[in-house]
Amino acid sequence: MSPAKKSDRKGKDDSPAGARIAVYDTTLRDGAQGEHVSFSLEDKLDMAQHLDWLGVDYIEGGWPFSNQKDISFYEEAARLKLENARLAAFGSTRRAKNKASEDDNLIALVNSRAPVVTIFGKTWDLHVTDALRVDLPVNLEMITDSVAFVKAHDHVQEVVYDAEHFFDGFFANRDYAMKTVAAAVDGGADVIVLCDTNGGRLPHEIEEATREVIRRFGSMVCGIHTHNDSGLAVANSVVAVQAGCRHVQGTVNGLGERSGNADLCSVLPNLELKLGLETVGRERLRRLTELSRYVYDTANLMLKDNQPFVGRSAFAHKGGVHVSAVQRNTRTYEHIDPETVGNERRVLVSELSGRSNVVEKTRHLELEKHPEKMKDILNEVQRLENEGYQFEAAEASFELLVRRIVGEFRPFFKLLGFRVTAINRDGSLDATEATVKVQVRNEVELSAAEGNGPVSALDKALRKALVKFYPVLEEMTLANFKVRIVDAQKATDAKVRVIIESRDPETHWTTVGVSANIIEASWIALVDSIEYKLLKGAAVN
Amino acid sequence: MSPAKKSDRKGKDDSPAGARIAVYDTTLRDGAQGEHVSFSLEDKLDMAQHLDWLGVDYIEGGWPFSNQKDISFYEEAARLKLENARLAAFGSTRRAKNKASEDDNLIALVNSRAPVVTIFGKTWDLHVTDALRVDLPVNLEMITDSVAFVKAHDHVQEVVYDAEHFFDGFFANRDYAMKTVAAAVDGGADVIVLCDTNGGRLPHEIEEATREVIRRFGSMVCGIHTHNDSGLAVANSVVAVQAGCRHVQGTVNGLGERSGNADLCSVLPNLELKLGLETVGRERLRRLTELSRYVYDTANLMLKDNQPFVGRSAFAHKGGVHVSAVQRNTRTYEHIDPETVGNERRVLVSELSGRSNVVEKTRHLELEKHPEKMKDILNEVQRLENEGYQFEAAEASFELLVRRIVGEFRPFFKLLGFRVTAINRDGSLDATEATVKVQVRNEVELSAAEGNGPVSALDKALRKALVKFYPVLEEMTLANFKVRIVDAQKATDAKVRVIIESRDPETHWTTVGVSANIIEASWIALVDSIEYKLLKGAAVN
Repeated sequence: MSPAKKSDRKGKDDSPAGARIAVYDTTLRDGAQGEHVSFSLEDKLDMAQHLDWLGVDYIEGGWPFSNQKDISFYEEAARLKLENARLAAFGSTRRAKNKASEDDNLIALVNSRAPVVTIFGKTWDLHVTDALRVDLPVNLEMITDSVAFVKAHDHVQEVVYDAEHFFDGFFANRDYAMKTVAAAVDGGADVIVLCDTNGGRLPHEIEEATREVIRRFGSMVCGIHTHNDSGLAVANSVVAVQAGCRHVQGTVNGLGERSGNADLCSVLPNLELKLGLETVGRERLRRLTELSRYVYDTANLMLKDNQPFVGRSAFAHKGGVHVSAVQRNTRTYEHIDPETVGNERRVLVSELSGRSNVVEKTRHLELEKHPEKMKDILNEVQRLENEGYQFEAAEASFELLVRRIVGEFRPFFKLLGFRVTAINRDGSLDATEATVKVQVRNEVELSAAEGNGPVSALDKALRKALVKFYPVLEEMTLANFKVRIVDAQKATDAKVRVIIESRDPETHWTTVGVSANIIEASWIALVDSIEYKLLKGAAVN
Repeated sequence: MSPAKKSDRKGKDDSPAGARIAVYDTTLRDGAQGEHVSFSLEDKLDMAQHLDWLGVDYIEGGWPFSNQKDISFYEEAARLKLENARLAAFGSTRRAKNKASEDDNLIALVNSRAPVVTIFGKTWDLHVTDALRVDLPVNLEMITDSVAFVKAHDHVQEVVYDAEHFFDGFFANRDYAMKTVAAAVDGGADVIVLCDTNGGRLPHEIEEATREVIRRFGSMVCGIHTHNDSGLAVANSVVAVQAGCRHVQGTVNGLGERSGNADLCSVLPNLELKLGLETVGRERLRRLTELSRYVYDTANLMLKDNQPFVGRSAFAHKGGVHVSAVQRNTRTYEHIDPETVGNERRVLVSELSGRSNVVEKTRHLELEKHPEKMKDILNEVQRLENEGYQFEAAEASFELLVRRIVGEFRPFFKLLGFRVTAINRDGSLDATEATVKVQVRNEVELSAAEGNGPVSALDKALRKALVKFYPVLEEMTLANFKVRIVDAQKATDAKVRVIIESRDPETHWTTVGVSANIIEASWIALVDSIEYKLLKGAAVN
């Protein structure tokens, strides 16, 4: 898409290509409000360092008045070496009854010593009268006073004003909404951020209200903060920037309360790659996928495979027609080059794929001369998929399957049996015990190990049996395992699919096992994981 | 939001409130292209019935040329009783070398006997020359011929033309793109659907191109089909409707290749509730949440908790400030009434919540008189959350915890011990065996059971021991269980969190257990599940 072809009145006038848009990350504060999300203090410090590495301009660390963890964050964060970002502390305007200088919340913001302070205040008359329960003019004073008080401190380099519920307020009582913005400007705010706090507004509304603010307060930096309750957070951020905002707020992976905040992993590439604006810069944008996955790991959440730009499926091709076209010209079914956001193209194996996916994935084996083996592979994939296997997320197991069929695989060991026992006596659990019997060439090895659970006990016993034959196993670890019910209506009799992710110093790989028994399913994936490690390490004995 | 306050040039002119927008569901065809998605023939037939129940206008069942399952679908679907929807069969234009009447793909479309046939063709010159490898004028003939051939059959009531890559084509070679649309109109197409096949376009581009088509072919019904590769599929659908489209395509839950299609679960409520247009109608829109969850179950995918409108977290309040405000006036932090889409408000328990969430969730216990008990509850929640528990998705376990602390809970049984053994001999697994010893009042009961796996064996043994004391347990079943690693970097030594969902004829409930041992964690959740059932059934002995 060449910029010259864009005949867009919005993008052209108000966001000239190359304009710099400041990025304000609130993963640590607004993101932590998400259901299932909770960060330890150490998590937050580590994440701040990673956000800086991505190149955001602001890192909102927390609300230092609301809990001890957030207070400690600002104390500890002082020792971080941030190259790009400045820390922002978040808090509300003063209470109606307090002087600004005597308001605990404002004092906490100042005491955080954060160089940027973000104050949110009420825009929507309904909130002023129903939630705060103060008169409308009093709220205006609260805003001006609070911004001015914070701004008067020398260490505070910048005051950001978050106009909470700005858009709802604008469409309910436009005059009053604009007065609240004026009150923040009067107090000395450096940035005015327009918030769609409830996430209910449509792009045309965002555009209209943003244009109006910029018309009136054009000399200010204007920002946008959206929520995804209508599935529109990314679009609303993009539209606001096109309408002239120069500051965009959001969270990594769109973490946040309810349906989440604007996902910076979509907003940034749209601004950089589609509109030609500058956020973290093209070079750093290549770190986006890695950062996204790091945040999921730290937040202990599952990856969202279909997440735009950074998801594992974002450039995954399954339909046979698409796969053959992409093989000819990647632009045919890819809106951007996956590498620009650090992601990669994948070709999936599935019943829908016809031959072309499997052909693509086995290209390195040069099966052109053995069409019957290709047919065997397709049949076996189909048979296993019917049993509940999925190889899309288990590429190491697929590789093993192919090699077994084409006769390029010699098993490294043979299982003769295992036994797992878990005992609970008087309500407290003993360690789980596993014994494993394997044969390597002509030698039979029986080993036993205890673990915290059945998979851990089996894993330990199996490695113990094998490591004397294959010392390279010392360097691999199991990084994660996932369990899915294949056939949920059968509940505990249903088949389960276990996915195991393993790591060694160089790389990581994923294997799959399916069985009605979770122990057996884990075992199958475990064995594949070890076989794959031995295979790729050329199995030096 | 009153329509009178909308000063929007787009919505007002081209989508007058009350206008009817046809809904074209492609979950069964484009949705099935998603990674991890695969539907059996029975699934597809059952889903078609459910989609009709929601009230969509078209159900695209598959591509009857591509595989046997899709051919069988149209044979079997003839016996469905559809009240609202018509079946559509999907396929491509004829091959360059074939006459339309001799093209296998077109013949398959006609043979499907579907009353609606959807033909996709190439818009983008790059695709014509690089993927199809035919001359540009030949593609135009292929489009006209194909549409005309299908349209000539009496049983075909309507031909929908999907202009694949319309927007990319429009911005690459506008004249040619418009010629392809004209070719479909010449062939007799009833609906022209503009597709953002690669999902890379921004809302202002969708708007511009759509307006241009409607200016030129205004007498046609125009439709929109978007993909979510840029996180903009919902916005792009809404914008296209505002620009005058009267037909919207999408999938339930946004299932689909790469980052998915436009999520009808967001598109429909935005059109109905925000723009005042008519899709399935306000009454049927209340079925949306149920349909969304049904499709996840059928597709065997996890719910997406933060999904807009229909997700479990979409109206969940966690932050203490929000909870107190919502208690006063729901509009303060909710963009719509959750009931309009069949969803519900939830108040979450979490360390961030301060007191107000726990207060809200324990209101029915009238703890105002016992502030020390409220403090004990808060402390216990915090302690367990530090251990890895999360009560946000385990409301039954939370209820039990509260009742245990306030002394309103008398245990129904006491665990004296259990043992689980799984044995594999010569590579094949025996059934897993569990023994359970429990005490009910003064009676000790020892029972044993076999299961497909450890959880199933324990579940059976425990019920066997208890059912003679509590026959009501006969009517409950385990509906699902989920396993999450709490502390992933410890891999198999990490703690696991097990969530068990149980059902009886009236309702369903969810419980949680955490342990480094998956068997123990499952056991804890299992016991809570049974205790909750007994508690709510007033435990008739």
